[in-house]
This record gives sequence, C-alpha cells and structure tokens, in this order.
Amino acid sequence: MDNRIIRNRIKAVRQLLNKNKTDSLVVAKPANVTYITGFCGHDSWAVITANAVYLLTDSRYTEQAENQCLPCRIISRTGSMTETVAKLVKRLKSAESIAVEKSIPLAAFEQLKRHISTRLKTASDIIEQLRSSKDTGEIAAIRTASVIAARALVQSRPNIKQGMTENELAGMLDLQIRRLGAINSFETIVAFGANASCPHHQPTARKLKKNDSILIDFGVRYKSYCCDITRCFGIGKMTPFYKKVYNAVQQAQTAAIKTVRAGVEKSKVDAAAREVIKKHGLPVYGHGTGHGLGLEIHEEPVISSQSKGKLKVGEVITIEPAVYIPGRVGIRIEDDVLVTETGCRILSRNYLQLPLLLT
Amino acid sequence: MDNRIIRNRIKAVRQLLNKNKTDSLVVAKPANVTYITGFCGHDSWAVITANAVYLLTDSRYTEQAENQCLPCRIISRTGSMTETVAKLVKRLKSAESIAVEKSIPLAAFEQLKRHISTRLKTASDIIEQLRSSKDTGEIAAIRTASVIAARALVQSRPNIKQGMTENELAGMLDLQIRRLGAINSFETIVAFGANASCPHHQPTARKLKKNDSILIDFGVRYKSYCCDITRCFGIGKMTPFYKKVYNAVQQAQTAAIKTVRAGVEKSKVDAAAREVIKKHGLPVYGHGTGHGLGLEIHEEPVISSQSKGKLKVGEVITIEPAVYIPGRVGIRIEDDVLVTETGCRILSRNYLQLPLLLT
Repeated sequence: MDNRIIRNRIKAVRQLLNKNKTDSLVVAKPANVTYITGFCGHDSWAVITANAVYLLTDSRYTEQAENQCLPCRIISRTGSMTETVAKLVKRLKSAESIAVEKSIPLAAFEQLKRHISTRLKTASDIIEQLRSSKDTGEIAAIRTASVIAARALVQSRPNIKQGMTENELAGMLDLQIRRLGAINSFETIVAFGANASCPHHQPTARKLKKNDSILIDFGVRYKSYCCDITRCFGIGKMTPFYKKVYNAVQQAQTAAIKTVRAGVEKSKVDAAAREVIKKHGLPVYGHGTGHGLGLEIHEEPVISSQSKGKLKVGEVITIEPAVYIPGRVGIRIEDDVLVTETGCRILSRNYLQLPLLLT
Repeated sequence: MDNRIIRNRIKAVRQLLNKNKTDSLVVAKPANVTYITGFCGHDSWAVITANAVYLLTDSRYTEQAENQCLPCRIISRTGSMTETVAKLVKRLKSAESIAVEKSIPLAAFEQLKRHISTRLKTASDIIEQLRSSKDTGEIAAIRTASVIAARALVQSRPNIKQGMTENELAGMLDLQIRRLGAINSFETIVAFGANASCPHHQPTARKLKKNDSILIDFGVRYKSYCCDITRCFGIGKMTPFYKKVYNAVQQAQTAAIKTVRAGVEKSKVDAAAREVIKKHGLPVYGHGTGHGLGLEIHEEPVISSQSKGKLKVGEVITIEPAVYIPGRVGIRIEDDVLVTETGCRILSRNYLQLPLLLT
C-alpha cells in the first residue's frame, strides 16, 4: 500500500485519539492493523503513539512486515502478545493514556490490565469510523476484485455440467480466481436445487441434475479488499415457479438499489426490497438486505429493518434480497454498490456485463 | 456428529461448571460451539444450563441447525447476539450464576454485563480443556483429513510444471481437495524458491523455474476437523545445499517425533528438533516446533522453548521444524502426530506413504 496513504490514515487516527484525550491506541483487529500499517499477515497487533507506529509480529512474518510496512517500527516478539505490548508501553514514557480496541478478547484485556493498570482505557470503532468511507484506492481494489470474480465465473461457466458436485464447482471457481492472481474473500457457497434454501449452505457431494438450479455466493480478495457476489442460474429448463421467484428477487434488488444515495435511511433501503417480495406473495428473507464490505467481508454499515442512521458517501455495501422456501427453492441476487452524493455505482457489474441470469 | 457423543460432552462441561460453582456457560468461540452442539455454521453462540443447551443462531442457519443439533433447543435471533443471550438468561430462573468464555470480545462482555449484571462471571478454557484430548471419532476425522490431503497432493503432482504460478498450484491443490469432498483448513501456502523463507508466505504470480524448489503448507478440514501438513520438494535438479538443509530439517523432525510420549515436557520436544538444526550449523527457526490442532487449526498445546507442562494422551500436535535463510532457502517439514502412552502415531503418513521428498 502507498506509504503516503498509510501516513494520512495514521494522522486521522491520532486526531480521533486526541478528541478522546488519548495519546496511544492498541490495535488488535486484523483489518484495522492492515488499514493503518499496510501489513497483510496474521497474528499481529499495532500500537499507535503520538510519535510512532509499532507493528508487533513474530518471526513467521518479520520479513513480510519489513517489506510491507515502511512507515512502521517492526517488533518481532518472542513472548506473548500482551507481554510484548506491556513491555513496549512501559518503555514509552510519552504514552500517558493508552486505549485498547474493544474488539480485543476479554482475556487479553485482563492480561494487559494486569501489566499496565492505571493508564488503560478502552475505545470503540476509532479505526472502523475511518474505514467505513472508502477512498479511491480502496474503491478501485473492490472494483478489481469484482472484475476478477466476474471473469472467474464466466470462465467457469462452460465447465458446469450435469453430474458434477457442489464441491467440485466451488473448487473450479476458486481455481479460476487463483489463476487470475487473487484469492477467495470467504468460503465459496455453491448450492444446487433446494439446497439453496439454506442461505449459508456449505457445498456437498450433491450432484448437478438435468434441469437443475445453482446458487453461487462467492467473493474475491484483491490487494486485501473483498467483493461479495451471488448469482443464481440453471442448467437446462427452469420451472415457471423458479422464473417467477427469480424475477421477484431481481425486482426487489433493483428497487433497493434505486433507493441508495447518501443521506437515505438505511432501513428504507431494506424496506424497498422487502416490499417487492411481499407484493409477489413470497416469503421475505430473514437476514438483512446488505452489509458493508472492504478489508472485511462483513463490516459497517448493516442494512436491515433495524438499522439506524443514514447512508454516507463512500460506503460500499451489498444489496442481496432473497427468497427461501425450504425443500423447494432458494434464490439470492447480490451486488456491491458504492454510495455516492447522487445515488450509487454498482461495482460488481462493471465488466463483461456479468449477466444476472446466465441461462 | 453422534448425539450420544454430544450429550457426553455436555455432561462433562456441566461437571466442570459445577466444580467452579457455576450453573450456566455462555459459549462464544465457534469451535467450542461446534464441540458441544455439533453445529458447523458461523455467527452462533450456545448457552449451556443445568437443564438444556440452547443454540443461538439466525435465519441464515436455522434450517442447518435444526438438522445438525438434535440435542439443542434452537433460538433464531433477530436482535443482537448479546440482547438474545440476555433475554434468554432472564427467562431462565434456574440460571443462578452464569459464566462467559473469556475469549469473548470485550465489547460483547460489557454489553452482557449491562443486561445481566450481578450474576455474570467469566471462565477460561472450560471447553478447551476437554477438547485438547481427542476421542477416537476425532482422531479418525483428523486421520481422514490427512488421507485426503495426501491424496490431493499426490494427484496434483503430475500437473506441477515449469511456468505455473504459486497461485495456480495453490488453486489446483485446493480443487483436488474439493473433488475429494473436503475443504481447506486454512489458506494454502505455496512458495517457490527463496519465497519459502517467509514461513507464512502468501502465494503470488511468481513462476516455477527450471530446477526450482517448492514449499507447500496446506491442510484439509473433514467433518470439522483439521490436518496441517508441509512438504518441500523440487522440480529438476536440486542444489547440494538444498539437499543438505532438507536432510537437517528431516533429521530434526525425526528427533522431535522420537521424543513425543505422554508425560514428556513439551519444551523437550522443541529442544530435540532445534539441537539437530544447530548441529548442522544452520540457523534455528523463530516459531515453535508445533501446535495442537483439531476443530481449530491452532489450538492447545503449544510446543515451543517456552512451553510449560507435559504432553498428554490424546493430544494431536504438529511437528514442524524448519530452516529459513532469507533470499536463499526455506524448508519446513510438518506432520501431525497423536500422543500416546508409549509414544506417538504419525496421523499424516498413514496413507499412500506420502513421501517426504517427492523428487
């Protein structure tokens, strides 16, 4: 990642910390560590002080950290993470009041508390606040992720044949993603026929039959950024009922996307999709209509009937209404959209015009 | 999972809770939820009381939960997880003292505390204690996972060719795993040449050259249980230095495996491997020599120079010494072994006699 961008992010974090009368922040959430250091490995924390940013990693990642995190000081720990943080903080006399991210496990917080008792505070969503609005580089990465996803699906399409298993199709799609130089952003969901009524179905040895339907929910991670796309289609002849449900879900998605604009209540976007499903006399889905995505596959904001507050410029969200009828059908259509001043931009349909219904 | 086994596990958890003068436990760690309910989905918690076990999930998983968790009562939540737990606990008059797993995020603990103030305690490693010693079903699942892993690697072998990228080889191996009806237990690591000196290298577009070396660290998840295997080999002619390092690592692994037996100090296993590497005049690796695995890819126990305590019967651990010389070479050999009364059983070399060095 560009060092200039990283430096600006660190500056923004320090400003938020100042507002909270805190001079240092212990960052434990992996996506937050990536955001403010550029480091893409695992099992690493960061400590931001007024003067420096420290990346606390271990020997498995030291070489990678030295290449990826030029603006940071790398500490290769040998003891536990909390011991290493405590040692560092004791050494830094400038760190007067230290905040710890509330996403940290309770056990780790208690260990830190034991070492750095009086100066320890907690903080929520400091970095998450900054992350929710994406900059042009982040938007470009999500867009490229979705271009790769579309390409991988279109390239896999000719190999989808009767007799193949859900497992095999998932593996084939994942291989195409790897061939295109990227990786899955989460475990690919492939569900044939009525299996698709489980929204988070895990692929099985179920074979694709003649005139069968397919749901694929998958994503690509490119330069650490995720996309998240669902497509439903069939091989052979689809039943009139499948087509009816498909059309309802597609109309619901279109209705929701039409409402997306900075300043719109998030619950309104959710309601727009549900209304269409209801009008078609079909059961509404139990999950939310969408979620933010970026460095994490699920991040702020949540788009559901219970969401409070309004959409903001630069947020990237999924829109994914669905209809599930156990034992019969499951159809979900999911795209990733960027919230703008005047509306939105669908990031996941910018290349190859990935058709909604492939047959 | 067998309901009888699940019921026995719940019984064992209740006995441990009784010892701690607690009647109920809020279980938030995914692997612990799977262990005591059989549920394999995500984003779900469990609550164990003296009379019942509740699985708190959402509509995305309700159908799956009903199929997988016969001994549990399923609660399909619509509000937040902590609200749902609070509501349930308030309803249960029998729950007098409630413990929460310390692996829970601090933010969630604070939310729970607000709702169920006085009765809330914390608990560490209640279920982890039970999980560390594997039963025959668990050992069989890890063994099958390693059989699938071996098969996938052997089947991929003929397709490894000069010019292919690290990304492509990782994707090909993952596809074989899917074809065999399983899934990765973590993101496959493929490193060509000197890239292998980063222990957790992420695959790139680096192409395989003539007379090049390959490190593959990968695993399979089968019936929720993980294996974790690393193999190093080459295409074409390997340098005498590569062979020398390889032999040293192999001897180090053999020496460590020879020490494994219930009752042996974990740090001794670590020392046995390091000593061999040192004797060969090579740099010792910075990570531990091994880790437990099961429902999680990394779980208790840790095998390192700082480990305290002894190996126990039924633990399944990796043994993975290595040599890393940045810019030059990275070799790691990793197998999964079951600790027994009299020694150990190598679970990851039981099928096809997966050769250590493939060329």
